[in-house]
Amino acid sequence: MSDLKLPALDAAAVPAVTGSDHPAPYRLTGREKRALGDALGLENFGVNLVRLPPGAPSTQRHWHSRQDEFIYVLDGELVLVTEGGEQRLTAGMAASFPAGVPDGHVLINRSGHDALYLEVGDRTPGDAVDYPDIDLMVRRVGGEERYLHKDGTPYPRADD
Amino acid sequence: MSDLKLPALDAAAVPAVTGSDHPAPYRLTGREKRALGDALGLENFGVNLVRLPPGAPSTQRHWHSRQDEFIYVLDGELVLVTEGGEQRLTAGMAASFPAGVPDGHVLINRSGHDALYLEVGDRTPGDAVDYPDIDLMVRRVGGEERYLHKDGTPYPRADD
Repeated sequence: MSDLKLPALDAAAVPAVTGSDHPAPYRLTGREKRALGDALGLENFGVNLVRLPPGAPSTQRHWHSRQDEFIYVLDGELVLVTEGGEQRLTAGMAASFPAGVPDGHVLINRSGHDALYLEVGDRTPGDAVDYPDIDLMVRRVGGEERYLHKDGTPYPRADD
Repeated sequence: MSDLKLPALDAAAVPAVTGSDHPAPYRLTGREKRALGDALGLENFGVNLVRLPPGAPSTQRHWHSRQDEFIYVLDGELVLVTEGGEQRLTAGMAASFPAGVPDGHVLINRSGHDALYLEVGDRTPGDAVDYPDIDLMVRRVGGEERYLHKDGTPYPRADD
């Protein structure tokens, strides 16, 4: 354990959150995220250290209307799936998903070992998220971001 | 060499820019930056892969009024200098510099080997940069960002 103090930290010391808050049946279980940016007091963008065990996807395939996304692979092997096909990413490789480009993307760990990457996303207001393969989207409804069916019906809140 | 195509790339394949555009006598020479975010088409924030040779600082000690900064060490050893003192950072350690916190920061490679890190900064408009140790600041003047002396006199433009 390191004895770093803010504004620095050891990423491994940040608590991990396992799984996702997607509504059933789309909830993820294997993904482990450490919110480094939040732990460091950043507000304009988030930075997460993400560990995917063998077989785990990063999320549901999706794209953002107003927020940029960036990922950088630190360890292991990931398959990036986009409309253009599949590409294999290893340490030192990066990918990004500019706001408004309707190219759904997801990372999948198809290897036999954990994979580790950094993800960055900004927090531009008014963002919407589309999931081309499933009955899900994110829209702002009454001042809060909600998971909706594609017909606009809301899913139950995570805490409902 | 990898054969990745956008939206992915091998970070090592992005052209490096050596040195900085600070006005004399503050220009840096050793630092090598690869602008991954620009190469990937991101606009809301920048991501650079930075290599510091032995003895090189990341920049002049500074802080931003409106833009958040984040760094993550990938390889080697760096000394983070802030108002709170010095801390030694190695791979897997991170630091950040939230907008508006007047704590000048810089990374210095005091080791005998190259050090490699990722840096992320957003592009919130209206940013100003202060350099507590030297006669330098960045302000918007007539619609463009300029390096100024602390009395407000502009330095010559890099292309003057």
